[in-house]
Amino acid sequence: METTFTYQKIASHEARKGTFDTCVLLYSGGLDTSIMLKWIAEAYNCSIVALTVDVGQLHEDLEAVKAKAIKLGAKEAVVVDAREEFAEKLLSRAIKANADYQGGYPLSTPLARVTLSEIAVRVAQERGIKVIAHGSTGKGNDQVRFENYITTLDATMKVIAPVREWSMGRDEQIDYAKQHDIPIKQNKQYLYSHDDNMWGSTNEGGDIENPACIPDLNKFLQVCVPPEKAPDAAEVLTVGFYKGVPCSINGEDLSLSQVIEQANTVGARHGVGIVHLTEDRLVGLKVRGVYEAPGAEILIKAHFNLEKLVNTRDLNELKKLLDEKWAYMCYGAKWYDPSMDAIHAFQDSANQYVNGTVKVKLYKGKAEVVAMESPHSLFDSNLATFNKDASFNQNASAGFIEIYNLAQKTYRRLHQK
Amino acid sequence: METTFTYQKIASHEARKGTFDTCVLLYSGGLDTSIMLKWIAEAYNCSIVALTVDVGQLHEDLEAVKAKAIKLGAKEAVVVDAREEFAEKLLSRAIKANADYQGGYPLSTPLARVTLSEIAVRVAQERGIKVIAHGSTGKGNDQVRFENYITTLDATMKVIAPVREWSMGRDEQIDYAKQHDIPIKQNKQYLYSHDDNMWGSTNEGGDIENPACIPDLNKFLQVCVPPEKAPDAAEVLTVGFYKGVPCSINGEDLSLSQVIEQANTVGARHGVGIVHLTEDRLVGLKVRGVYEAPGAEILIKAHFNLEKLVNTRDLNELKKLLDEKWAYMCYGAKWYDPSMDAIHAFQDSANQYVNGTVKVKLYKGKAEVVAMESPHSLFDSNLATFNKDASFNQNASAGFIEIYNLAQKTYRRLHQK
Amino acid sequence: METTFTYQKIASHEARKGTFDTCVLLYSGGLDTSIMLKWIAEAYNCSIVALTVDVGQLHEDLEAVKAKAIKLGAKEAVVVDAREEFAEKLLSRAIKANADYQGGYPLSTPLARVTLSEIAVRVAQERGIKVIAHGSTGKGNDQVRFENYITTLDATMKVIAPVREWSMGRDEQIDYAKQHDIPIKQNKQYLYSHDDNMWGSTNEGGDIENPACIPDLNKFLQVCVPPEKAPDAAEVLTVGFYKGVPCSINGEDLSLSQVIEQANTVGARHGVGIVHLTEDRLVGLKVRGVYEAPGAEILIKAHFNLEKLVNTRDLNELKKLLDEKWAYMCYGAKWYDPSMDAIHAFQDSANQYVNGTVKVKLYKGKAEVVAMESPHSLFDSNLATFNKDASFNQNASAGFIEIYNLAQKTYRRLHQK
Amino acid sequence: METTFTYQKIASHEARKGTFDTCVLLYSGGLDTSIMLKWIAEAYNCSIVALTVDVGQLHEDLEAVKAKAIKLGAKEAVVVDAREEFAEKLLSRAIKANADYQGGYPLSTPLARVTLSEIAVRVAQERGIKVIAHGSTGKGNDQVRFENYITTLDATMKVIAPVREWSMGRDEQIDYAKQHDIPIKQNKQYLYSHDDNMWGSTNEGGDIENPACIPDLNKFLQVCVPPEKAPDAAEVLTVGFYKGVPCSINGEDLSLSQVIEQANTVGARHGVGIVHLTEDRLVGLKVRGVYEAPGAEILIKAHFNLEKLVNTRDLNELKKLLDEKWAYMCYGAKWYDPSMDAIHAFQDSANQYVNGTVKVKLYKGKAEVVAMESPHSLFDSNLATFNKDASFNQNASAGFIEIYNLAQKTYRRLHQK
Repeated sequence: METTFTYQKIASHEARKGTFDTCVLLYSGGLDTSIMLKWIAEAYNCSIVALTVDVGQLHEDLEAVKAKAIKLGAKEAVVVDAREEFAEKLLSRAIKANADYQGGYPLSTPLARVTLSEIAVRVAQERGIKVIAHGSTGKGNDQVRFENYITTLDATMKVIAPVREWSMGRDEQIDYAKQHDIPIKQNKQYLYSHDDNMWGSTNEGGDIENPACIPDLNKFLQVCVPPEKAPDAAEVLTVGFYKGVPCSINGEDLSLSQVIEQANTVGARHGVGIVHLTEDRLVGLKVRGVYEAPGAEILIKAHFNLEKLVNTRDLNELKKLLDEKWAYMCYGAKWYDPSMDAIHAFQDSANQYVNGTVKVKLYKGKAEVVAMESPHSLFDSNLATFNKDASFNQNASAGFIEIYNLAQKTYRRLHQK
Repeated sequence: METTFTYQKIASHEARKGTFDTCVLLYSGGLDTSIMLKWIAEAYNCSIVALTVDVGQLHEDLEAVKAKAIKLGAKEAVVVDAREEFAEKLLSRAIKANADYQGGYPLSTPLARVTLSEIAVRVAQERGIKVIAHGSTGKGNDQVRFENYITTLDATMKVIAPVREWSMGRDEQIDYAKQHDIPIKQNKQYLYSHDDNMWGSTNEGGDIENPACIPDLNKFLQVCVPPEKAPDAAEVLTVGFYKGVPCSINGEDLSLSQVIEQANTVGARHGVGIVHLTEDRLVGLKVRGVYEAPGAEILIKAHFNLEKLVNTRDLNELKKLLDEKWAYMCYGAKWYDPSMDAIHAFQDSANQYVNGTVKVKLYKGKAEVVAMESPHSLFDSNLATFNKDASFNQNASAGFIEIYNLAQKTYRRLHQK
Repeated sequence: METTFTYQKIASHEARKGTFDTCVLLYSGGLDTSIMLKWIAEAYNCSIVALTVDVGQLHEDLEAVKAKAIKLGAKEAVVVDAREEFAEKLLSRAIKANADYQGGYPLSTPLARVTLSEIAVRVAQERGIKVIAHGSTGKGNDQVRFENYITTLDATMKVIAPVREWSMGRDEQIDYAKQHDIPIKQNKQYLYSHDDNMWGSTNEGGDIENPACIPDLNKFLQVCVPPEKAPDAAEVLTVGFYKGVPCSINGEDLSLSQVIEQANTVGARHGVGIVHLTEDRLVGLKVRGVYEAPGAEILIKAHFNLEKLVNTRDLNELKKLLDEKWAYMCYGAKWYDPSMDAIHAFQDSANQYVNGTVKVKLYKGKAEVVAMESPHSLFDSNLATFNKDASFNQNASAGFIEIYNLAQKTYRRLHQK
Repeated sequence: METTFTYQKIASHEARKGTFDTCVLLYSGGLDTSIMLKWIAEAYNCSIVALTVDVGQLHEDLEAVKAKAIKLGAKEAVVVDAREEFAEKLLSRAIKANADYQGGYPLSTPLARVTLSEIAVRVAQERGIKVIAHGSTGKGNDQVRFENYITTLDATMKVIAPVREWSMGRDEQIDYAKQHDIPIKQNKQYLYSHDDNMWGSTNEGGDIENPACIPDLNKFLQVCVPPEKAPDAAEVLTVGFYKGVPCSINGEDLSLSQVIEQANTVGARHGVGIVHLTEDRLVGLKVRGVYEAPGAEILIKAHFNLEKLVNTRDLNELKKLLDEKWAYMCYGAKWYDPSMDAIHAFQDSANQYVNGTVKVKLYKGKAEVVAMESPHSLFDSNLATFNKDASFNQNASAGFIEIYNLAQKTYRRLHQK
């Protein structure tokens, strides 16, 4: 490839040096964004407001993150607890949509990007700041999500994406950190990267990268025990739903974020929700990751089954198609496209009677819905039973069959001639 | 309900008494069809050719079934080994379609109905017989499948469905059997019913019927061990594919029916492929069943993942939609609708490069794809790696983002005003 | 076909003789239902409430219809003006859905069946009557719609469908009418049948029946002039919309039913909205009809174009798919399936900004949208113009192209080897 | 917008100055590409092979175009007659797909871009040239199509898009032409731009640009007469099809390109196929154009109706969805995505029996299918007629209705309580 290695800014939403004096940095406290805090200050000669958003990730103590930001030179360090907001606005949608991208990914990262962008824009606007920096790479999905969402929410906002610019590899980052007195936990031997929040954890890199290798779960799992280390006794969890949103665990009423937290705790103990997925990134690449999403696995499976119980075959078929589209758009940085509003309206309608309880059995890595009840269940034992005097009119069946088959039969008869 | 309990024949494809002297009976050797053998002979005053088709079900010795038919009065007893035909014509399609009805049912029964109907029509035509009897009930899917397929394959063929006519419950059937010297294994206490073939086994009735109850797997599983009784050590199975069809297990080349048989054996040992499903029947009812389909679970998961690896994001999204439609049509007795030909052409095209090997880990009830290789893999480590000098052009990303987001941003900017 | 010609009642929703003493008859005043009024009274030995619903059809004076019913022996004759109800509840939905079944049919009859069924059930319930008779044939769609909707709205309601029972052909009906002193306009030479309401008119029979013939419009058009007889000067109609529903014509604010009436008048004058359609009936047959729907053609075209103007490409693509499904379900007697509620929620969302005006040119049989304006238009002359200093960032395009193409290019490069 | 006006090359497929000595220029002979011939030679200091591909556009004499290229300094001028190739490979697909983007655009330009790219790559490869220049703007669809297709067909090929670089407006181009002795027909007053080929002509600019204005057809139509100037007598054209592809006009067997040519001639005379369309560009903008595509309008309408006649309701519904996806992908520069191969396989299957003849009436701007015949027609007069002894079994209908409605009825009964 003959392109030069000097990054050129050509997008109109990229902030140029000298055009601003302060930016908000989405700051996690980890290696990348800690380096970034120093690097942006130097490269752009600007001050930095470090913003840390709590969406339920497994993080260090937030006060420590805050202190670290200040120590590294941030002008201000802001911590926002967005766990309820994230659950209520985003994760309730994910559950109603039976969130599943390409076979098992409940879209934890793409969903969190929405909340992070909203809060970053809010924090910047409150301070009159016009630039937001994020820590995503130049070949991933997250740059698309952050930059799309930020500029969609505020078309005057500009963005910095240092990883696209600085052309440092992992080793060079570690060297940079050492040179700049940035405390780090990583070493050059640890090959994995992680992103997580209350809806799930993503593991990438190392032996996970190449789909041809079996990755060693013991080396990198952050949330779950490997199934082999799960308890020998199964556990049945009862999840209550109201209008498609989980509202209780084992009979105890809880807020959605509490339900998710509990489902995570129990599920993780049973090694549930570990998914090996080779997925299509938005930018045209395949990548393999290993996801851990015990709560999502339990709640989505429960929801999916209950929803089917209260809706008709026609609606169950059609909703699958919209849920699929939802997953691709959510993954694909299209949260604010009006398509999503319309899909959400559809999903809300299809969830109006999704009330009831679902029993989920957890055992050695697997979650299985084993029973469910709903006041709106369309299961009707009078119709369905093998009992001969039940009320289904069997005499109507042959007539149904004849008419139902007419087109197929006419077509084949014509072509058998 | 005020309908009379005397069944009235109104469909033009139903055979009327006195219009024929011989019929083919799809004979399994079980309770229902054994009673039927006697009952039809009496009620219709005709002779019967008992046809038993081997599609890989767990059956008694076929010679014994044949002898039983003759003993019960059949004029002729025919046994057809259709295992290869079923695998090659139907199950290869199911695999390419990632067969999944409503969340985990690989469509074992609906698929077998196609093969059974084809063979029944063939056997009838060879003997100049114009009537085929089947053992399905008047409130299920199978009557629709048998009658549609039989009359589609030969529009002059008529059908008898004794269960719709005779209005006997389970207990009355057992009484009838005793009165007519029909040997039976069932007793009035055993509440389950089963249907199976090499692609899976269906369990219904008893505590399975009501979705609100947790069914006791120990009482009725026919194929699998319950996960709790599976080995403590995981096992990794390597499945080879050529053009989307499995062709080897652990490096050994096998016919498709052999692959399925082996996958069943290994999977059953690990309790894999047990699905609790409350599904929408074609006739408008919900019903719960517990399926056992260890081979299908393994092979479909393996196929689904390999297929995604060699196809693009656009095709992966679109194919999901057609696979979904395929499942509803296959379940819905539409195998011969030209829609299915067109979907099959689509699926064949999407499978032309689905070659390679997939490693599936089996452990305590769960099958998980943990690695895969293909000469046609679109995973490109040069593009995807975190390595800084890989060939993905990160400088293009911001331009992509700007244009990709333009419509969404324009829409929201307009509506924020 | 060996079925007997004596109709047998097997459906549980069919009313049997002797089980009721009064029924509501959906009475149009035409040949079929006038005969029916006599025939039901005799055959079922019951009294009849004749119900005539005005959904904007081209009918005789309603007082005359009422008098005719009484004269033919009806116990009571009820006339309901449902034009506003039909427009507000059904046709507003049709417009938001861009109603189009199989290439141009705006679903006039299927939509009216909903309103007729609702009113029939209401009228019956008010009088404590449990049986409703309709005039539809045994091989069409309308029997399915009436019987489904009536029994869905009130599961205790029963139905009579005399045309299925009486086995009279057209000639025998005319003879029956003469014998029973039923005044008729038809003669044995007039071969066409019509069904109409404010949303469109259906013509069937005669030379329309066989798709191989060119039907002679001059013989049967009820609403429109043939295009050849339309004025030589084109006319431009301006239609105003609010939230997807037409609300003005040429600047004058009108109720929806008034808009439709005016659009019908003007469109009919220009021969607009005549559609020759060979369609798939719900019962598996093909049938050809010639539709006249001048108002629907104008309003749907206008809506379709305005809707596209205010929504994004993604939403425009997705909505097409849901509109298509809506048309099949509306045609297919599924108005009350919860799928329709969910689709309606989707469509309402997609119509929230469909405000503005659309200019439609009418000329010699063709309606064409030639201009439109909306405060929510996404057309942005600053972005779209050829002017070199417009604000679209052309420098971003090449980056977009590179990433957008990556998967396609990777796939083909691999397979060119 | 603060981006600099100096174009920066960041895409890896953009050719940089000094890296090549010859390029192929897609040369139409018009203003833009004539200027380009000079401009590229100067700006890149290279020689140019001018390539003119005949895809049936309304062009000057090709020998004149060739001579003009040489006169303007081209090293070589190549003319390729690709009319048959374009028709056979691309337009046959468009017809089978009932090509329609967003309500009436038969995709003439997007389809031609495939053929042009293939030929450009072929011509370049034959000469060992590694760079292709195209005349598309930086804010349109065509840059995406050309660059995607060229680099997909040959990943080593680079591209030049002068219009993105040179930042000349229309007036500056005219000045440039005058300064460089480039003969032009345009003047600063003529505001329209055109692109055309045998499948249709696109008109943009001037009063067409703003969707709020009614454009004056008399000023810019290139192919069709305005409907008002069409003959007063209608004309009926008979189109023959074999496997979905047109093969005759009025009984005379013709190659596809001949059929299209004739359909264009006759259709243009009747002012058929003029479409005003405000469409979504791939790059996120809306744009209005007026298309003229008389042949496409006739052939696609004919095909669409015949195809529906020979296929079942299920297939007709499903194919619509795939045709829709096809149109978005064809428009969206995804011709070589494997999704298209799979859709094509589907469409070929659905067209295997699309044989027969279709009569299309042309009158004053409108094309209407008025009759059709096929040996594979599923219209069956024995089933569909009103005649009482026809073979449709009306007695089966009530049974069909009862079962068909069961889910809808159960759902509503539950929720009415």
